[in-house]
Amino acid sequence: MGHATAAIEAALSARMDAIIETLEAFVRIPSVSTDSAYAAGIAEGARFVADQLLRAGIKDATIHQIAGHPIVTGSWRAAPGKPTLLIYGHYDVQPPDPLAAWTTPPFEPAIRDGRLYGRGASDDKGPMLIPIEVVATYLAVRGALPINVVFLFEGEEENSSANLEGFVAAHKSLLAADITVSADGAQWRADLPSVITGSRGICSLEIFVAGPAKDLHSGRHGGSVANPIQALVSVLARLHAPDGSIAVPGFYDRVRPVSSRERQAIARIPFDEQAYLASVGTPEGVGEAGYSLLERNWLRPTLEYNGIIGGYTGPGRKTVIPSGASAKVTCRLVPDQDPEEIAALVAKQVRAFAPKGVKLEVRTGPGGSRAYAVPEGNSALTLTERILGEVTGAVPDRVRMGATIPIGDVFRRMLGIETVFFSFSTSDEDYHAPNEFFRLQSLERGLKAWVRLMQAMGGGGA
Amino acid sequence: MGHATAAIEAALSARMDAIIETLEAFVRIPSVSTDSAYAAGIAEGARFVADQLLRAGIKDATIHQIAGHPIVTGSWRAAPGKPTLLIYGHYDVQPPDPLAAWTTPPFEPAIRDGRLYGRGASDDKGPMLIPIEVVATYLAVRGALPINVVFLFEGEEENSSANLEGFVAAHKSLLAADITVSADGAQWRADLPSVITGSRGICSLEIFVAGPAKDLHSGRHGGSVANPIQALVSVLARLHAPDGSIAVPGFYDRVRPVSSRERQAIARIPFDEQAYLASVGTPEGVGEAGYSLLERNWLRPTLEYNGIIGGYTGPGRKTVIPSGASAKVTCRLVPDQDPEEIAALVAKQVRAFAPKGVKLEVRTGPGGSRAYAVPEGNSALTLTERILGEVTGAVPDRVRMGATIPIGDVFRRMLGIETVFFSFSTSDEDYHAPNEFFRLQSLERGLKAWVRLMQAMGGGGA
Repeated sequence: MGHATAAIEAALSARMDAIIETLEAFVRIPSVSTDSAYAAGIAEGARFVADQLLRAGIKDATIHQIAGHPIVTGSWRAAPGKPTLLIYGHYDVQPPDPLAAWTTPPFEPAIRDGRLYGRGASDDKGPMLIPIEVVATYLAVRGALPINVVFLFEGEEENSSANLEGFVAAHKSLLAADITVSADGAQWRADLPSVITGSRGICSLEIFVAGPAKDLHSGRHGGSVANPIQALVSVLARLHAPDGSIAVPGFYDRVRPVSSRERQAIARIPFDEQAYLASVGTPEGVGEAGYSLLERNWLRPTLEYNGIIGGYTGPGRKTVIPSGASAKVTCRLVPDQDPEEIAALVAKQVRAFAPKGVKLEVRTGPGGSRAYAVPEGNSALTLTERILGEVTGAVPDRVRMGATIPIGDVFRRMLGIETVFFSFSTSDEDYHAPNEFFRLQSLERGLKAWVRLMQAMGGGGA
Repeated sequence: MGHATAAIEAALSARMDAIIETLEAFVRIPSVSTDSAYAAGIAEGARFVADQLLRAGIKDATIHQIAGHPIVTGSWRAAPGKPTLLIYGHYDVQPPDPLAAWTTPPFEPAIRDGRLYGRGASDDKGPMLIPIEVVATYLAVRGALPINVVFLFEGEEENSSANLEGFVAAHKSLLAADITVSADGAQWRADLPSVITGSRGICSLEIFVAGPAKDLHSGRHGGSVANPIQALVSVLARLHAPDGSIAVPGFYDRVRPVSSRERQAIARIPFDEQAYLASVGTPEGVGEAGYSLLERNWLRPTLEYNGIIGGYTGPGRKTVIPSGASAKVTCRLVPDQDPEEIAALVAKQVRAFAPKGVKLEVRTGPGGSRAYAVPEGNSALTLTERILGEVTGAVPDRVRMGATIPIGDVFRRMLGIETVFFSFSTSDEDYHAPNEFFRLQSLERGLKAWVRLMQAMGGGGA
């Protein structure tokens, strides 16, 4: 470790309590992007991020008011001849419900057993704060960075980053860089350091079935009219084949076959399927026939039901034929599926299955994202692997990601650069569920690792 | 019309405003039986009914505290040699949700266009108040009734009358009578006087599917584990065959075939299917193949989905694999199906369909009731038909009822007597939906008709 690195790391260590307090203040902001009831939380989230950049010494920190939620940028380009990192993260968070399942309220951060609990702590407020704090410390201690940086923090990651592509397309010179380093994209497991080399895409649909004009007495009218729940379940049940594959014509047309090389690479990764299933509390792995659990999760597309509702769902019994029922569906996509095309194919099949006696409506969206895979020989990928090995003391595996980070595809197409993932969140941190948390140990490791990454990219060794 | 009848009718006319005020006070009580949050409303409902009986001059009015909601009885047996009527009604009401769909609040009665709006106004508070007011008027004007009466008002009709049978079995001498006249059981249509000669039974089930221990990120975990919504819809979708019949082995075993005489009788009843479908706001009638709409509704059993819920159902998108999903199901039964047997058969089939990777639980209940049909030649049936013809000026049709009134079967088995339905509610009055109402004209007709019924049964002509 060089002197410079050691000095920065020491300064960061001395500031740990302040960094944790900043993260707590960040988590306290209810910046939920998918529900307009939280509009004030989103606005406050954007202001908080811009304030942190200014505090760090990023003088051009800017809140961009766009069609969707604001994007915050800032840059430091005073290291001529050195590479430029585009640092990506997001300040928006998932909805907090079901509220009753939280041990402490989602927007009241609480530290227990070395973990900071609160919505967004792990996805992505903790991880995105790390490079800001590292830059702040460099500029405070040394007055300069070893490389150039441009920050891009969005407020719609949990809502398909619907406006990110348009923003990037309109700000190509502001964002010009050599590589994107994403502070989003969780470590696969807490016990196994890994670098993510690809992520799945996503598209979404909502299906509405309308039956009678109002809820009807199921005795007086039962047998006379179509039941919207019956209609909806009959449609949904036909979207999967008995072997677990997706029964939508054309769905798999662009999917690359899983190669034997990919299968072998996955098979080499230590993975205890029973321990995984126990950790999520389910007795057996279920999915598409002919693929291992990790292959299904990383390399195969899915069609998932995220929510369904219709009729009377309160306590006891209410004998109604409901006036309507609806379901939310998302598909996870793999290279080279197109989100709009897949959403249209699913919508077409849903409409084709529409039963008699009801009105069925399918809405596609919001947003969609393609899958992404970083080229295997990318030098930044190799560097992040090495540094992660140093801070964790173990050789990281290359893994894919079942989830969606739209940026890889967006930055490749808009800026012509690849993306590596360098997040210190881990995938067991319940970030789309109640009781989300971020390990304070990960915060420390992340700070160290980002120092080394900047130092190494600046040519100063790490 | 005899002098006695005319005097009672005149006295009732003079009291109309007071009767409407009493009904409003009754509707104001939130006596919802299926949700324990309304326990105070149920208790208040029982007290109100007992108070009305005492006011009417029924000195032995009693609130019976039973295992379920209280039953209120009262009798007047001072007409030796005259027949005894067991007068049945219920003071409990359906849940009021969805609250937002009510023009005026469900428990704040409001009169608009000759209709009294409010939860329970039509089912069954208005209709059950009628015989109380008639008896009150007889006792006030003449100090005696032309027949003997015993009142039985329960608080669990909307919850399967789960404790009625046990109460009747334990109070056979208190309830001894020659015929039951039910103030519950709506007129089929507002435009067509009718007497109900039978009702369907009911049984109910709730299906719970448990998947992962908590909601999972549908990207990180999609493809790995079973989706409880997918599991639930796959089960539900298999409970009906493509022809609309119920795909549960044994379900139809005890069902009597629809006879050609029954088919002809139904075909003779004026029924505008398109007008009916328009009135409920649905474009086409849907149900079991091979039967007309009325045959399906009156003479064939059904399996209906009353409610379904799982996962994220709020605004926008939340990409989860939910930890669970559940559905509420009821079956309407016909002679000679047994509710417990049918619930067990459906539960068995649901369990047989349980997919891999989830835990499926089926709970049967609450309660169940057999279908009922009054013998065609019953003299009380003929009398109610005649009186209804007189007060409406039209010859009533004999109709069956798709809904469930458990009492017919209970009183036949426990007391050895038949039941006729003499309610002045009509089936378009939204009694299991928002904006339930009762026509004030029906209140007036009902008062007249009950006077004539008592007079005729007492041998005094009508």
